[in-house]
Amino acid sequence: MSGHLAVVGLGPGDERYLTPEASEALAAAQALYGYGPYLERVPVHAGQVRHVSDNREERARAAAALSRAANGARVAVVSGGDPGVFAMAAAVCEEIEAGPDSFRALDIAIIPGITAMLAVAARIGAPLGHDFCALSLSDNLKPWDVIERRLDAAAGAGFVIALYNPVSRARPWQLGKAMQRLQRHLPPATPVVFGRAVGRADENVSVVPLDRAESAPADMATLIIVGSRATRVVERPGRSPLVYTPRAAVEVSA
Amino acid sequence: MSGHLAVVGLGPGDERYLTPEASEALAAAQALYGYGPYLERVPVHAGQVRHVSDNREERARAAAALSRAANGARVAVVSGGDPGVFAMAAAVCEEIEAGPDSFRALDIAIIPGITAMLAVAARIGAPLGHDFCALSLSDNLKPWDVIERRLDAAAGAGFVIALYNPVSRARPWQLGKAMQRLQRHLPPATPVVFGRAVGRADENVSVVPLDRAESAPADMATLIIVGSRATRVVERPGRSPLVYTPRAAVEVSA
Repeated sequence: MSGHLAVVGLGPGDERYLTPEASEALAAAQALYGYGPYLERVPVHAGQVRHVSDNREERARAAAALSRAANGARVAVVSGGDPGVFAMAAAVCEEIEAGPDSFRALDIAIIPGITAMLAVAARIGAPLGHDFCALSLSDNLKPWDVIERRLDAAAGAGFVIALYNPVSRARPWQLGKAMQRLQRHLPPATPVVFGRAVGRADENVSVVPLDRAESAPADMATLIIVGSRATRVVERPGRSPLVYTPRAAVEVSA
Repeated sequence: MSGHLAVVGLGPGDERYLTPEASEALAAAQALYGYGPYLERVPVHAGQVRHVSDNREERARAAAALSRAANGARVAVVSGGDPGVFAMAAAVCEEIEAGPDSFRALDIAIIPGITAMLAVAARIGAPLGHDFCALSLSDNLKPWDVIERRLDAAAGAGFVIALYNPVSRARPWQLGKAMQRLQRHLPPATPVVFGRAVGRADENVSVVPLDRAESAPADMATLIIVGSRATRVVERPGRSPLVYTPRAAVEVSA
């Protein structure tokens, strides 16, 4: 008897982003594991058992789901956005490596989803149209000096920067410090996109210049995209501006 | 009379990756514009006109689609993967900025999709589970020394690196040179994932160590993910290995 575990990306919150592959995997599961607000988005199917856990309990959730699958069940672990980007897929892999042989014998499927930076970028134009990086601002799992060194490297080399996990109650100062750090490398007018809750009723996407980004409102549901020196803002009469990064490297940072 | 233009991400090639939002936008269009192999993936709806163009004709395709929309039509430009990642959304924004006022008056929607790096990562585990960047290896639109400087910055600072457009008939040596360059920063055994045609019948995903990656087969449809010093390979008896990057920065590159 061999179980099956799928790690399923739900996308940014609107079911119009949920791929057919993800819908099928969710419908086929006997047991669902996830953070409460993500599980609430999953359509209810008769006979499924739901295991709700806290946002911080990623390793424990992964271990519980793997154990259930190793006992022969068809299990789905749900993840916001894409499970492979600062989400559940890495936590599941960590548990597979650290766990019993039965975990490594399991049939594992990772189902990709629309990650937040793609959804936010699409709402505003094409800020990720040229080379870019994705960086978590959380210093729960890495030292702050590593984050600063990565901000320096990325901005200095001309990458657009998508910032995940920019702020939380326990991490109030990190975003401001990151924006100050980026001003060492980028002009004050560099466009910074703040995208929150894309695809949900309370969606909000705005553009502010880098020298005012420090005090812009952000929370755990915010994804931030910091332009490069090449990123442009196109004003449109009666419409929100477009922000995009040209495909050609027309200007190279010093 | 005001037209509408949608730039629609098809995902990596299997319709199970196509989001409901993208399906709706494709069905609603009166005219479709795109590279032939992408248009072939779009379900046929009666009354739609299809405009096929060559892969290199991105600016001309964008201009033609915008002109048609400015004349009042409901238009969709199709893009493989996600339109915002090395694809059509930036080309459309470039034309909007350079074009007549009527382009800036249009209703524009960018519909995100599963970009290749997310699909390849999902097939192999979670190599993008920590900070990463996406870099096009094409030197058609930027000088090669900019690419080398970005490879140095990304690998040196501990980012996992997703390489788009690794090779083409006109660019035969760039991939080998990039792999040599990365060996200055990363150990010979660093895992490199080669993913081709994920979701299609000829899908192929393999893992090779960095010091052998130079001679691994790759083409225009290949997406490459180069691990960081923290990226791990988990062997599984009778199954393909998992490749993942832990969420915690356990080791920092020199």
